[in-house]
Amino acid sequence: MSSESHLSPSQPIPLHSVSHWHDEADAVVIGFGAAGACTALEAARSGARTILFEATSGSGGTSALSGGEIYLGGSGGTPMQRAAGFDDATEDLYNYLVAAGGPNADAAKARLYADNSLDHFHWLMAQGIEYRNSYIAERCIEPSTDDCLIWSGSEEAWPFVTQAKPAPRGHCPKFVGMGGGRYIMDVLAKRVVEAGVDVRYDSRAMALIVDDSRRVRGIAVRTGGEVRMVRARRGVALCAGGFVMNREMVTRHVPLLLRSRFPIGTVDDGSGIRLGMSVGGAAVNMGEGFTTVPWYPPGSLVKGIFVNSQGQRFINEDCYHGRVSHYALQQTGDRIWLLQDNSTYGAGELHGLARIEIGAAGDSWAEIERELALPENSLTATVATYNRYAAEGKDPLFHKAAKWLKPLDEPPFVALDCRIDHCFYSSFTLGGLDTLPTGEVLDEDHNVIAGLYAAGRTACGLPRWGEGYSSGMSLADATFFGRQAGRRIAAAVA
Amino acid sequence: MSSESHLSPSQPIPLHSVSHWHDEADAVVIGFGAAGACTALEAARSGARTILFEATSGSGGTSALSGGEIYLGGSGGTPMQRAAGFDDATEDLYNYLVAAGGPNADAAKARLYADNSLDHFHWLMAQGIEYRNSYIAERCIEPSTDDCLIWSGSEEAWPFVTQAKPAPRGHCPKFVGMGGGRYIMDVLAKRVVEAGVDVRYDSRAMALIVDDSRRVRGIAVRTGGEVRMVRARRGVALCAGGFVMNREMVTRHVPLLLRSRFPIGTVDDGSGIRLGMSVGGAAVNMGEGFTTVPWYPPGSLVKGIFVNSQGQRFINEDCYHGRVSHYALQQTGDRIWLLQDNSTYGAGELHGLARIEIGAAGDSWAEIERELALPENSLTATVATYNRYAAEGKDPLFHKAAKWLKPLDEPPFVALDCRIDHCFYSSFTLGGLDTLPTGEVLDEDHNVIAGLYAAGRTACGLPRWGEGYSSGMSLADATFFGRQAGRRIAAAVA
Repeated sequence: MSSESHLSPSQPIPLHSVSHWHDEADAVVIGFGAAGACTALEAARSGARTILFEATSGSGGTSALSGGEIYLGGSGGTPMQRAAGFDDATEDLYNYLVAAGGPNADAAKARLYADNSLDHFHWLMAQGIEYRNSYIAERCIEPSTDDCLIWSGSEEAWPFVTQAKPAPRGHCPKFVGMGGGRYIMDVLAKRVVEAGVDVRYDSRAMALIVDDSRRVRGIAVRTGGEVRMVRARRGVALCAGGFVMNREMVTRHVPLLLRSRFPIGTVDDGSGIRLGMSVGGAAVNMGEGFTTVPWYPPGSLVKGIFVNSQGQRFINEDCYHGRVSHYALQQTGDRIWLLQDNSTYGAGELHGLARIEIGAAGDSWAEIERELALPENSLTATVATYNRYAAEGKDPLFHKAAKWLKPLDEPPFVALDCRIDHCFYSSFTLGGLDTLPTGEVLDEDHNVIAGLYAAGRTACGLPRWGEGYSSGMSLADATFFGRQAGRRIAAAVA
Repeated sequence: MSSESHLSPSQPIPLHSVSHWHDEADAVVIGFGAAGACTALEAARSGARTILFEATSGSGGTSALSGGEIYLGGSGGTPMQRAAGFDDATEDLYNYLVAAGGPNADAAKARLYADNSLDHFHWLMAQGIEYRNSYIAERCIEPSTDDCLIWSGSEEAWPFVTQAKPAPRGHCPKFVGMGGGRYIMDVLAKRVVEAGVDVRYDSRAMALIVDDSRRVRGIAVRTGGEVRMVRARRGVALCAGGFVMNREMVTRHVPLLLRSRFPIGTVDDGSGIRLGMSVGGAAVNMGEGFTTVPWYPPGSLVKGIFVNSQGQRFINEDCYHGRVSHYALQQTGDRIWLLQDNSTYGAGELHGLARIEIGAAGDSWAEIERELALPENSLTATVATYNRYAAEGKDPLFHKAAKWLKPLDEPPFVALDCRIDHCFYSSFTLGGLDTLPTGEVLDEDHNVIAGLYAAGRTACGLPRWGEGYSSGMSLADATFFGRQAGRRIAAAVA
């Protein structure tokens, strides 16, 4: 048997070198975030004896750090969508998911999810997650109340609006304030225990165990200072998060995220992805990541314009905050400003989360330009052109929708400081193991790796393109495709 | 033994399933481009019996499609650099290579190369590659003559000029016209045969053969419709190019390159990288690629400015053409123009290679703006601000050097059409297997994979960042680090 000091997630243990199994189950799930919880739940409920190993001392994973929003719709709409007047067709959800998936979108996952998203919502409620039937029309990140339905993507913004009929699809649980992810995970964790899943905390996955035919037979887990060989009769599911906390992997695969100073993760050290790759699993979209500086609410700020270090606009500002931020990160230079006039800025207070402050204020844009030490006629030319067309309700350069267009001509003016190295640009990774919608991990030749499953950010799921990410997509993917994986493992031949 | 139909570069063959060796050598080299040629040469000259397998029917690989430029310098300069008045310090070459390597630069390779680049030049000449001692100061892609030394990177441009003292380092062989890569490969191929390397054409690597300790023991090769098991006593060197011709891999790893319509490759199907990954080799920088629309000469065009679909500038135009093109590819929208006035455009003819044509012409920039259907005061504001500062010899927005600055104020004006979907934007990949400077392939834990080596674009070498690529870097890397790999294999314990 391999001694612990030699174990690496990137080097599988050959079955023949395992002399003794310390533990045994039908399904072995790694990670107790949303994906792991749902995988374990469905596996156990389908009759599989299930062990769930979690590296930390509690449930939740990075899912518990989230707002708890889940991206849901289709089939004519959830009760909240219908009550708010949105008849969300399945094809519109599907088309949005495909557009949001970018150049390597996973049409099969988008199809399955769009067709079954409403059912999934009912399942979530059946687990005990409560939702109010309410809708917030105003732009926000998460409700500060316990309201439910919000706009959480770029559905109404160019170019997505040309590809699918928009609807709000972010569903937040009945939980007052931010942090609904913890609430959701607490509910799911209770169900996991009730379902009879054997949960082991402080237990870190060390290496997969494979036989000569490359079938995954188990996994070595370190618990209490000891390495234990765990046999998985039906399969191992890797639900161990992404790799944003592994700065070497970020440097190697998605260096753009190095610009973001706030990686969002718990473990997320890439070990799940590495375990999968160690037996031939293909890792895809490893260069993609999510980032955001949550620059609204208030929604009136969307009427302002973003400019880069050259005083140029770079995107239609009515996109999802994460898409705008992703573009901000791609700009040359570290300085990003959000320009507002008295009427757009005065409408509400900036929230503190984003660490955005006023960078300059003045009675003319020329004054702001000088204060920001920008070359003469850079920012002012940008504003002049924007204003000229905004007065006509047009944005020929970046296609911001008419409802957000108004000339920024009411002094005083402000430039909100959205510097990349100063504000709260958070990030997580979107690349991971290539999987079928069933959670089965694929190799480079698109063959299934027997006995191996992945879900959540260890897999490359619905959210897989930084420019297309929308809030709630990662939890939607983790919960829904975790469930698929759990059922598939339980149905596998032992 | 695995039957051919089941062989995949992503699935190694266990040693114990190999019942018979059809062939045997100390060193087995895959691919007859520059990297494979130099690996085989040094291995054979160091006493290793060497077989080189090439998938096509001739030598050259993608190296033979190149201009034959090699990026050389340091140690006070090559004879050509010295004659042209450039005293190229080793530290300047090193610093440039590190800056050009981007966020995941390989300092160890940059160090070894900078220290030994001049010696490498002497070695190249000793192989029979001839060089004239001549220098072309004018911006060019490759000399149309048989001249040698050219500026082939962004050495004089911001921000590189702030990081290393500039020198021209592109060395082109004594070969009249473009296409010196074929000449260089013909010379090297002769040396390979003279050195006693056993060259086998029409022979495609199918899968690596590994033992239980993960040591590479050989490789399965398909020759003449038959799969042959080839034992490698000392090592296998993967020199099979990158993956730009494998559009699925491009989609999964470097989707930006999908925008370029002209992939440059021969085989370059990613099989070399996949073979390495199949035994645990780490692939890094897979999201990086080179692209260029070779928009100069004439050099006077550098005095013009590039604008995107929004009429905005996006880079200092005095960078290397590939860096400018890389930024062009990253812009929102497909339309890219290069603006020129009568004095900057009149200086020479556009070469046909780039497929750049005149998109608009007029006596005022407002006329050009209208002709291009750009919003009023978009392009004109860009030009006005540029001109105002250019008159003072300044470019506060993008830091183009003073020698390239002049107001674009002499009519008639032209907008050269550099549309991404229309012009010759060529590309190749820069990500590959992580290796030591010796060519030894590393796994995710930075351990050497015994018996496995890689060089050229199958490895992630000196050129590894699209924004920093400079002409001649890939051949420099392939030839120099191919040599290191060849010597290391020959010295390995059988």
